[in-house]
Amino acid sequence: MTTNADLLEIPQSEQTVFNGLLIHVNHMQVTLPNGQSAMREIVSHNGGAAIVPVDADENLYMVRQHRIAVDEMTLEIPAGKLEYRGADFRDAAIRELEEETGLRAEHVELLTSAFPTPGYCNEILGIYLATGLSQHEDHPDADEFLHVEKLPLKEAVARVMTGEFRDAKTIIGILMAWYHLHGYETPSGK
Amino acid sequence: MTTNADLLEIPQSEQTVFNGLLIHVNHMQVTLPNGQSAMREIVSHNGGAAIVPVDADENLYMVRQHRIAVDEMTLEIPAGKLEYRGADFRDAAIRELEEETGLRAEHVELLTSAFPTPGYCNEILGIYLATGLSQHEDHPDADEFLHVEKLPLKEAVARVMTGEFRDAKTIIGILMAWYHLHGYETPSGK
Repeated sequence: MTTNADLLEIPQSEQTVFNGLLIHVNHMQVTLPNGQSAMREIVSHNGGAAIVPVDADENLYMVRQHRIAVDEMTLEIPAGKLEYRGADFRDAAIRELEEETGLRAEHVELLTSAFPTPGYCNEILGIYLATGLSQHEDHPDADEFLHVEKLPLKEAVARVMTGEFRDAKTIIGILMAWYHLHGYETPSGK
Repeated sequence: MTTNADLLEIPQSEQTVFNGLLIHVNHMQVTLPNGQSAMREIVSHNGGAAIVPVDADENLYMVRQHRIAVDEMTLEIPAGKLEYRGADFRDAAIRELEEETGLRAEHVELLTSAFPTPGYCNEILGIYLATGLSQHEDHPDADEFLHVEKLPLKEAVARVMTGEFRDAKTIIGILMAWYHLHGYETPSGK
Protein backbone atom coordinates (compact mmCIF):
# COMPACT_ATOMS: atom_id res chain seq x y z
CA MET A 1 0.00 0.00 0.00
CA THR A 2 2.92 2.40 0.62
CA THR A 3 3.51 2.91 -3.07
CA ASN A 4 -0.18 3.59 -3.60
CA ALA A 5 -0.70 6.21 -0.87
CA ASP A 6 -1.10 8.75 -3.65
CA LEU A 7 -4.28 6.94 -4.75
CA LEU A 8 -6.02 6.94 -1.38
CA GLU A 9 -9.42 8.57 -0.91
CA ILE A 10 -10.20 9.40 2.71
CA PRO A 11 -13.85 9.31 3.85
CA GLN A 12 -14.91 12.45 5.70
CA SER A 13 -18.64 11.99 6.22
CA GLU A 14 -21.42 9.76 5.04
CA GLN A 15 -25.17 10.14 4.80
CA THR A 16 -27.84 7.60 3.90
CA VAL A 17 -29.96 9.07 1.10
CA PHE A 18 -32.10 6.05 0.17
CA ASN A 19 -33.28 2.97 2.03
CA GLY A 20 -34.79 0.44 -0.33
CA LEU A 21 -36.00 -3.14 -0.15
CA LEU A 22 -32.80 -4.58 -1.56
CA ILE A 23 -30.31 -1.74 -1.65
CA HIS A 24 -29.39 1.33 0.33
CA VAL A 25 -27.59 4.37 -1.05
CA ASN A 26 -25.09 6.51 0.82
CA HIS A 27 -23.48 9.77 -0.19
CA MET A 28 -19.92 9.79 1.07
CA GLN A 29 -17.80 12.94 1.12
CA VAL A 30 -14.16 12.02 0.50
CA THR A 31 -10.86 13.84 0.39
CA LEU A 32 -9.04 13.07 -2.84
CA PRO A 33 -5.28 12.44 -3.05
CA ASN A 34 -4.82 16.04 -4.23
CA GLY A 35 -6.58 17.39 -1.13
CA GLN A 36 -9.79 18.34 -2.90
CA SER A 37 -13.21 17.03 -1.95
CA ALA A 38 -15.54 14.85 -3.96
CA MET A 39 -18.80 13.03 -3.37
CA ARG A 40 -19.15 9.31 -3.96
CA GLU A 41 -22.56 7.69 -4.38
CA ILE A 42 -22.26 4.23 -2.88
CA VAL A 43 -24.83 1.45 -3.13
CA SER A 44 -25.00 -1.02 -0.28
CA HIS A 45 -26.13 -4.58 -0.99
CA ASN A 46 -26.07 -7.73 1.16
CA GLY A 47 -24.05 -9.66 -1.41
CA GLY A 48 -24.84 -12.99 -2.97
CA ALA A 49 -23.68 -16.47 -3.81
CA ALA A 50 -23.61 -18.38 -7.09
CA ILE A 51 -22.69 -21.95 -7.90
CA VAL A 52 -21.55 -23.86 -10.99
CA PRO A 53 -23.00 -27.39 -10.72
CA VAL A 54 -21.08 -29.82 -12.94
CA ASP A 55 -22.00 -33.52 -13.02
CA ALA A 56 -19.77 -36.55 -13.65
CA ASP A 57 -20.36 -36.31 -17.42
CA GLU A 58 -19.35 -32.65 -17.29
CA ASN A 59 -22.83 -31.31 -17.83
CA LEU A 60 -23.69 -27.93 -16.34
CA TYR A 61 -27.06 -27.15 -14.74
CA MET A 62 -28.39 -23.66 -15.37
CA VAL A 63 -31.64 -21.84 -14.61
CA ARG A 64 -33.70 -19.86 -17.07
CA GLN A 65 -35.49 -16.86 -15.59
CA HIS A 66 -37.17 -13.67 -16.67
CA ARG A 67 -34.92 -10.84 -15.47
CA ILE A 68 -37.21 -7.87 -15.71
CA ALA A 69 -34.44 -5.35 -14.91
CA VAL A 70 -32.80 -6.17 -18.24
CA ASP A 71 -35.99 -7.46 -19.89
CA GLU A 72 -34.45 -10.78 -20.91
CA MET A 73 -35.00 -14.49 -20.37
CA THR A 74 -31.51 -15.23 -19.12
CA LEU A 75 -29.82 -18.57 -18.63
CA GLU A 76 -27.71 -18.25 -15.47
CA ILE A 77 -25.94 -20.41 -12.95
CA PRO A 78 -27.97 -20.91 -9.76
CA ALA A 79 -27.57 -17.95 -7.41
CA GLY A 80 -29.24 -15.85 -4.80
CA LYS A 81 -28.85 -13.01 -2.38
CA LEU A 82 -27.46 -13.33 1.13
CA GLU A 83 -30.15 -12.98 3.78
CA TYR A 84 -28.07 -10.35 5.59
CA ARG A 85 -24.70 -8.67 5.02
CA GLY A 86 -22.12 -10.94 6.62
CA ALA A 87 -24.06 -14.19 6.09
CA ASP A 88 -22.05 -17.19 4.95
CA PHE A 89 -21.50 -17.27 1.18
CA ARG A 90 -20.92 -21.01 0.96
CA ASP A 91 -24.09 -21.87 2.89
CA ALA A 92 -26.05 -19.54 0.61
CA ALA A 93 -24.57 -21.13 -2.53
CA ILE A 94 -25.48 -24.63 -1.32
CA ARG A 95 -29.00 -23.49 -0.35
CA GLU A 96 -29.64 -21.81 -3.71
CA LEU A 97 -28.39 -24.86 -5.58
CA GLU A 98 -30.88 -27.11 -3.83
CA GLU A 99 -33.77 -24.60 -3.91
CA GLU A 100 -33.44 -23.86 -7.60
CA THR A 101 -32.37 -27.22 -9.03
CA GLY A 102 -32.91 -29.86 -6.35
CA LEU A 103 -29.21 -30.76 -6.60
CA ARG A 104 -26.94 -31.57 -3.67
CA ALA A 105 -23.17 -31.64 -4.04
CA GLU A 106 -20.47 -33.73 -2.35
CA HIS A 107 -17.79 -31.15 -3.15
CA VAL A 108 -18.20 -27.38 -3.05
CA GLU A 109 -15.10 -25.28 -3.79
CA LEU A 110 -14.71 -21.52 -3.95
CA LEU A 111 -13.80 -20.32 -7.45
CA THR A 112 -13.62 -16.64 -6.54
CA SER A 113 -15.15 -13.92 -4.46
CA ALA A 114 -15.99 -11.21 -6.98
CA PHE A 115 -17.06 -7.57 -6.92
CA PRO A 116 -19.77 -7.19 -9.60
CA THR A 117 -19.61 -3.34 -9.62
CA PRO A 118 -16.82 -2.08 -7.33
CA GLY A 119 -17.00 1.43 -8.81
CA TYR A 120 -20.20 2.19 -6.89
CA CYS A 121 -21.47 -0.84 -4.95
CA ASN A 122 -20.12 -2.87 -2.03
CA GLU A 123 -21.70 -6.12 -3.28
CA ILE A 124 -19.55 -9.25 -3.00
CA LEU A 125 -20.49 -12.44 -4.84
CA GLY A 126 -19.04 -15.79 -3.78
CA ILE A 127 -18.86 -18.09 -6.81
CA TYR A 128 -18.48 -21.84 -6.17
CA LEU A 129 -17.94 -25.02 -8.15
CA ALA A 130 -20.16 -27.96 -7.14
CA THR A 131 -19.29 -31.53 -8.09
CA GLY A 132 -20.42 -34.95 -6.93
CA LEU A 133 -24.05 -34.06 -7.66
CA SER A 134 -27.18 -35.97 -6.67
CA GLN A 135 -30.78 -35.09 -7.57
CA HIS A 136 -33.37 -34.29 -4.88
CA GLU A 137 -36.55 -32.16 -4.76
CA ASP A 138 -36.29 -28.51 -5.79
CA HIS A 139 -38.26 -25.88 -3.88
CA PRO A 140 -37.94 -22.40 -5.40
CA ASP A 141 -39.10 -19.32 -3.50
CA ALA A 142 -42.79 -18.42 -3.85
CA ASP A 143 -42.05 -15.48 -6.16
CA GLU A 144 -39.36 -17.26 -8.17
CA PHE A 145 -40.21 -18.94 -11.47
CA LEU A 146 -37.51 -20.78 -13.35
CA HIS A 147 -36.64 -23.70 -15.61
CA VAL A 148 -33.59 -25.87 -15.06
CA GLU A 149 -31.61 -26.64 -18.22
CA LYS A 150 -28.69 -29.04 -18.56
CA LEU A 151 -25.95 -28.63 -21.15
CA PRO A 152 -22.32 -29.71 -21.61
CA LEU A 153 -19.92 -27.34 -19.81
CA LYS A 154 -17.92 -27.11 -23.02
CA GLU A 155 -21.01 -25.87 -24.89
CA ALA A 156 -21.55 -23.31 -22.12
CA VAL A 157 -18.00 -21.99 -22.64
CA ALA A 158 -18.71 -21.64 -26.36
CA ARG A 159 -21.97 -19.77 -25.61
CA VAL A 160 -20.05 -17.38 -23.35
CA MET A 161 -17.53 -16.75 -26.13
CA THR A 162 -20.21 -15.96 -28.72
CA GLY A 163 -21.67 -13.39 -26.32
CA GLU A 164 -24.92 -15.31 -25.80
CA PHE A 165 -24.53 -15.73 -22.02
CA ARG A 166 -24.31 -12.17 -20.73
CA ASP A 167 -24.80 -12.47 -16.97
CA ALA A 168 -21.47 -11.56 -15.35
CA LYS A 169 -21.47 -14.19 -12.59
CA THR A 170 -22.44 -16.85 -15.14
CA ILE A 171 -19.59 -15.88 -17.49
CA ILE A 172 -17.13 -15.88 -14.58
CA GLY A 173 -18.40 -19.16 -13.14
CA ILE A 174 -18.35 -21.02 -16.46
CA LEU A 175 -14.91 -19.81 -17.58
CA MET A 176 -13.30 -20.30 -14.17
CA ALA A 177 -14.85 -23.77 -13.83
CA TRP A 178 -13.48 -24.73 -17.24
CA TYR A 179 -9.99 -23.45 -16.40
CA HIS A 180 -10.18 -25.10 -13.00
CA LEU A 181 -11.12 -28.47 -14.48
CA HIS A 182 -8.97 -28.35 -17.63
CA GLY A 183 -6.20 -25.82 -17.07
CA TYR A 184 -5.57 -22.98 -19.46
CA GLU A 185 -2.49 -24.19 -21.27
CA THR A 186 -2.98 -24.48 -25.00
CA PRO A 187 -1.48 -27.26 -27.11
CA SER A 188 1.35 -24.91 -28.16
CA GLY A 189 2.25 -24.41 -24.51
CA LYS A 190 1.96 -20.63 -24.84
CA MET B 1 -40.08 -17.63 -25.92
CA THR B 2 -43.19 -19.79 -26.33
CA THR B 3 -41.81 -22.48 -24.08
CA ASN B 4 -40.91 -19.88 -21.45
CA ALA B 5 -44.23 -18.03 -21.27
CA ASP B 6 -44.72 -19.58 -17.84
CA LEU B 7 -41.70 -17.56 -16.62
CA LEU B 8 -42.90 -14.15 -17.77
CA GLU B 9 -43.37 -11.29 -15.33
CA ILE B 10 -45.66 -8.55 -16.64
CA PRO B 11 -45.03 -4.95 -15.51
CA GLN B 12 -48.15 -3.21 -14.19
CA SER B 13 -46.88 0.10 -12.86
CA GLU B 14 -43.62 1.76 -12.04
CA GLN B 15 -42.61 4.58 -9.73
CA THR B 16 -39.27 6.34 -9.32
CA VAL B 17 -38.34 6.25 -5.64
CA PHE B 18 -34.77 7.62 -5.79
CA ASN B 19 -32.91 9.92 -8.15
CA GLY B 20 -29.19 9.88 -7.46
CA LEU B 21 -26.05 11.22 -9.09
CA LEU B 22 -25.20 7.92 -10.75
CA ILE B 23 -28.21 5.68 -10.28
CA HIS B 24 -31.96 5.90 -10.12
CA VAL B 25 -34.22 3.42 -8.39
CA ASN B 26 -37.68 2.39 -9.53
CA HIS B 27 -40.25 0.26 -7.81
CA MET B 28 -42.06 -1.83 -10.38
CA GLN B 29 -45.25 -3.71 -9.63
CA VAL B 30 -45.35 -6.92 -11.66
CA THR B 31 -47.78 -9.76 -12.21
CA LEU B 32 -46.06 -13.08 -11.65
CA PRO B 33 -46.64 -16.15 -13.85
CA ASN B 34 -49.04 -17.51 -11.20
CA GLY B 35 -51.17 -14.33 -11.38
CA GLN B 36 -50.00 -12.91 -8.05
CA SER B 37 -48.37 -9.52 -7.66
CA ALA B 38 -44.86 -8.70 -6.54
CA MET B 39 -42.69 -5.60 -6.29
CA ARG B 40 -39.30 -5.42 -7.99
CA GLU B 41 -36.74 -2.83 -6.96
CA ILE B 42 -34.84 -1.90 -10.09
CA VAL B 43 -31.70 0.19 -10.27
CA SER B 44 -31.16 2.24 -13.41
CA HIS B 45 -27.57 2.97 -14.53
CA ASN B 46 -26.21 4.44 -17.78
CA GLY B 47 -23.97 1.44 -18.39
CA GLY B 48 -20.27 1.38 -19.03
CA ALA B 49 -17.44 0.20 -21.21
CA ALA B 50 -14.23 -1.67 -20.40
CA ILE B 51 -11.26 -2.62 -22.54
CA VAL B 52 -8.51 -5.25 -22.40
CA PRO B 53 -5.38 -3.65 -23.93
CA VAL B 54 -2.89 -6.34 -25.03
CA ASP B 55 0.37 -5.37 -26.73
CA ALA B 56 2.42 -7.30 -29.32
CA ASP B 57 4.36 -9.11 -26.56
CA GLU B 58 1.06 -10.10 -24.97
CA ASN B 59 1.37 -7.75 -22.04
CA LEU B 60 -1.83 -6.44 -20.47
CA TYR B 61 -2.21 -2.86 -19.24
CA MET B 62 -4.24 -2.43 -16.06
CA VAL B 63 -5.07 0.47 -13.76
CA ARG B 64 -4.72 0.48 -10.01
CA GLN B 65 -7.32 2.57 -8.18
CA HIS B 66 -8.77 3.02 -4.74
CA ARG B 67 -12.34 1.74 -4.92
CA ILE B 68 -13.86 3.19 -1.81
CA ALA B 69 -17.16 1.28 -2.22
CA VAL B 70 -15.30 -1.97 -1.53
CA ASP B 71 -12.41 -0.32 0.36
CA GLU B 72 -9.72 -1.91 -1.80
CA MET B 73 -6.88 -0.88 -4.08
CA THR B 74 -8.03 -2.85 -7.08
CA LEU B 75 -6.16 -3.63 -10.27
CA GLU B 76 -8.71 -3.43 -13.09
CA ILE B 77 -8.86 -3.18 -16.84
CA PRO B 78 -9.46 0.40 -18.05
CA ALA B 79 -13.17 1.26 -17.90
CA GLY B 80 -15.67 3.99 -17.36
CA LYS B 81 -19.31 4.92 -17.34
CA LEU B 82 -21.30 5.95 -20.38
CA GLU B 83 -22.11 9.67 -20.40
CA TYR B 84 -25.78 8.88 -21.00
CA ARG B 85 -27.88 5.75 -21.40
CA GLY B 86 -27.73 4.83 -25.07
CA ALA B 87 -24.25 6.30 -25.68
CA ASP B 88 -21.91 4.24 -27.84
CA PHE B 89 -20.07 1.54 -25.87
CA ARG B 90 -17.14 1.22 -28.30
CA ASP B 91 -16.47 4.97 -28.34
CA ALA B 92 -16.53 4.98 -24.54
CA ALA B 93 -14.10 2.05 -24.35
CA ILE B 94 -11.66 3.76 -26.72
CA ARG B 95 -11.97 7.06 -24.81
CA GLU B 96 -11.37 5.42 -21.42
CA LEU B 97 -8.36 3.54 -22.76
CA GLU B 98 -6.69 6.74 -23.88
CA GLU B 99 -7.74 8.79 -20.84
CA GLU B 100 -6.52 6.26 -18.31
CA THR B 101 -3.44 4.81 -20.01
CA GLY B 102 -2.57 7.04 -22.97
CA LEU B 103 -2.88 4.03 -25.26
CA ARG B 104 -4.47 4.03 -28.70
CA ALA B 105 -5.40 0.80 -30.47
CA GLU B 106 -5.47 -0.16 -34.14
CA HIS B 107 -7.94 -2.97 -33.49
CA VAL B 108 -10.87 -2.88 -31.07
CA GLU B 109 -13.13 -5.95 -30.97
CA LEU B 110 -16.17 -6.63 -28.80
CA LEU B 111 -15.59 -9.54 -26.43
CA THR B 112 -19.05 -9.42 -24.85
CA SER B 113 -21.81 -7.15 -23.71
CA ALA B 114 -22.41 -8.20 -20.10
CA PHE B 115 -25.00 -7.59 -17.39
CA PRO B 116 -23.06 -7.08 -14.13
CA THR B 117 -26.15 -7.50 -11.89
CA PRO B 118 -29.23 -8.43 -13.96
CA GLY B 119 -31.18 -9.45 -10.86
CA TYR B 120 -31.80 -5.82 -9.93
CA CYS B 121 -29.99 -3.41 -12.28
CA ASN B 122 -30.31 -2.57 -15.99
CA GLU B 123 -26.57 -1.82 -16.35
CA ILE B 124 -24.89 -3.13 -19.51
CA LEU B 125 -21.13 -3.25 -19.82
CA GLY B 126 -19.45 -3.51 -23.23
CA ILE B 127 -16.11 -5.31 -22.86
CA TYR B 128 -13.59 -4.93 -25.69
CA LEU B 129 -10.19 -6.31 -26.69
CA ALA B 130 -7.67 -3.72 -27.91
CA THR B 131 -4.60 -4.70 -29.93
CA GLY B 132 -2.11 -2.86 -32.12
CA LEU B 133 -1.31 -0.47 -29.26
CA SER B 134 0.68 2.76 -29.39
CA GLN B 135 1.57 5.02 -26.45
CA HIS B 136 0.33 8.64 -26.27
CA GLU B 137 -0.43 11.07 -23.42
CA ASP B 138 -2.86 9.98 -20.72
CA HIS B 139 -5.34 12.48 -19.28
CA PRO B 140 -7.43 11.05 -16.44
CA ASP B 141 -10.51 12.89 -15.16
CA ALA B 142 -9.88 15.56 -12.51
CA ASP B 143 -11.26 13.36 -9.69
CA GLU B 144 -9.63 10.13 -10.93
CA PHE B 145 -6.31 8.96 -9.50
CA LEU B 146 -4.74 5.83 -10.85
CA HIS B 147 -1.50 4.00 -11.67
CA VAL B 148 -1.02 2.06 -14.88
CA GLU B 149 0.61 -1.36 -14.45
CA LYS B 150 1.78 -3.71 -17.20
CA LEU B 151 1.94 -7.47 -16.79
CA PRO B 152 1.89 -10.56 -19.01
CA LEU B 153 -1.67 -11.57 -19.93
CA LYS B 154 -0.84 -15.11 -18.86
CA GLU B 155 0.11 -13.87 -15.39
CA ALA B 156 -3.19 -11.95 -15.27
CA VAL B 157 -5.08 -15.19 -16.00
CA ALA B 158 -3.22 -16.89 -13.14
CA ARG B 159 -4.07 -14.00 -10.79
CA VAL B 160 -7.74 -14.34 -11.73
CA MET B 161 -7.60 -18.06 -10.96
CA THR B 162 -6.04 -17.54 -7.50
CA GLY B 163 -8.87 -15.12 -6.69
CA GLU B 164 -6.59 -12.08 -6.48
CA PHE B 165 -8.34 -10.10 -9.24
CA ARG B 166 -11.90 -9.75 -8.01
CA ASP B 167 -13.45 -7.09 -10.23
CA ALA B 168 -16.06 -8.83 -12.38
CA LYS B 169 -15.39 -6.97 -15.66
CA THR B 170 -11.66 -7.55 -15.18
CA ILE B 171 -12.12 -11.29 -14.65
CA ILE B 172 -14.39 -11.51 -17.69
CA GLY B 173 -12.11 -9.39 -19.87
CA ILE B 174 -8.94 -11.28 -18.99
CA LEU B 175 -10.41 -14.78 -19.36
CA MET B 176 -12.29 -13.97 -22.57
CA ALA B 177 -9.21 -12.28 -24.06
CA TRP B 178 -7.11 -15.35 -23.26
CA TYR B 179 -9.65 -17.71 -24.82
CA HIS B 180 -10.05 -15.40 -27.78
CA LEU B 181 -6.30 -15.29 -28.42
CA HIS B 182 -5.44 -18.91 -27.55
CA GLY B 183 -8.63 -20.95 -27.80
CA TYR B 184 -9.84 -23.10 -24.96
CA GLU B 185 -8.94 -26.54 -26.17
CA THR B 186 -6.56 -28.33 -23.86
CA PRO B 187 -3.71 -30.57 -25.03
CA SER B 188 -5.91 -33.66 -24.47
CA GLY B 189 -8.53 -32.21 -26.82
CA LYS B 190 -11.21 -32.45 -24.13
